[in-house]
Amino acid sequence: MIGVEERLRRLEDREAIRDLLTDYGRALDRRDTQAYSELFATDGEWSGGLGSGQTPAGIKQMLDDAFARMTPGVYRNPHHLLGNFAIDLDGDRATATSRWVWIAAGPDGAPQLMRAGRYDDDLVREEGRWKFRRRRAVTDLLPTGG
Amino acid sequence: MIGVEERLRRLEDREAIRDLLTDYGRALDRRDTQAYSELFATDGEWSGGLGSGQTPAGIKQMLDDAFARMTPGVYRNPHHLLGNFAIDLDGDRATATSRWVWIAAGPDGAPQLMRAGRYDDDLVREEGRWKFRRRRAVTDLLPTGG
Amino acid sequence: MIGVEERLRRLEDREAIRDLLTDYGRALDRRDTQAYSELFATDGEWSGGLGSGQTPAGIKQMLDDAFARMTPGVYRNPHHLLGNFAIDLDGDRATATSRWVWIAAGPDGAPQLMRAGRYDDDLVREEGRWKFRRRRAVTDLLPTGG
Repeated sequence: MIGVEERLRRLEDREAIRDLLTDYGRALDRRDTQAYSELFATDGEWSGGLGSGQTPAGIKQMLDDAFARMTPGVYRNPHHLLGNFAIDLDGDRATATSRWVWIAAGPDGAPQLMRAGRYDDDLVREEGRWKFRRRRAVTDLLPTGG
Repeated sequence: MIGVEERLRRLEDREAIRDLLTDYGRALDRRDTQAYSELFATDGEWSGGLGSGQTPAGIKQMLDDAFARMTPGVYRNPHHLLGNFAIDLDGDRATATSRWVWIAAGPDGAPQLMRAGRYDDDLVREEGRWKFRRRRAVTDLLPTGG
Repeated sequence: MIGVEERLRRLEDREAIRDLLTDYGRALDRRDTQAYSELFATDGEWSGGLGSGQTPAGIKQMLDDAFARMTPGVYRNPHHLLGNFAIDLDGDRATATSRWVWIAAGPDGAPQLMRAGRYDDDLVREEGRWKFRRRRAVTDLLPTGG
């Protein structure tokens, strides 16, 4: 039988991890690469369609470079719609999976489904805050050659 | 160090606010303007693509008028898919941001992305229930001229 | 005034039910019909566009048959994006409604909105785990003749 303190902690951890997953989407859509990079642990890793990076500074650089390569005016007003959060706690570690759908302005301005996929995450509590130790973004659906 | 009572309250407040954000979508999609208006505080305000309104009665009127202006048969079976809830509590006040995607039946009946945007909310606990004090709906993606 | 134990239990129940709703989507998208069927109570029922079934074994059979009928290569990489979870607890019973959007690879591989709808659920705590007693999947948006 686990006690009140641990039960509260587990509930709070799940809330904090949901916040982390959501903050990620906000930082990405605002192209706030500083805030984005601070969501990663000291030895954090990211890998996905944009490349891969390690440590907050390395991940910020990777994302800055990726945005710099994008054709201006394309992928305007990006929206990452996040969902299907599944979180497994294990003390100061956790794993999570979730879904993402990336929506952006099509040629006529209307929202268009660009890509869809999932995130597989290893998480760690670092100085009292949940961070990404490893986030892998898998793209399941994208235009041929896209 | 905050106590058990306050920790429980914070967790319950987050649940109650998620319910509020979700109830909003349900009332809107059912076009239940009465239920919709009751989600707002006594001095509540709404502003967005449909116009703006104040107080529950004023907001109900605004929405009734907006629905009356819509061409019958267009935008059939509207779905607001809501997500990316980010909630910041501050006692009996709170702020929230979230994303919405509006899906409706296209010419062949299939689901079509119509518009997408976000909500920026000021929330208040009023007689023990969380309500919208101010909800601003921002449309980021819509067809040109739409 | 309800006590700490009951308040914790209610919060934990909501988390467990969110997990159930999310696990359903994962099992379905992986076409793991065994895991899918185990989310239903001993006398569980499912009904929706694929047919209907009762008991975990009967529901597994229904889903195996439905997947066997599908044209190979069509509906590749299915994604159910789930959201708008609304949960009402009542002791060892609960009801829930939620939204689903089904996305799959279109002819060019890009994500396409295939169908959208909602789930109406009766839930039950069985041997300490939340299960579907009755899940009804309603399709609101689908192509004409689809």
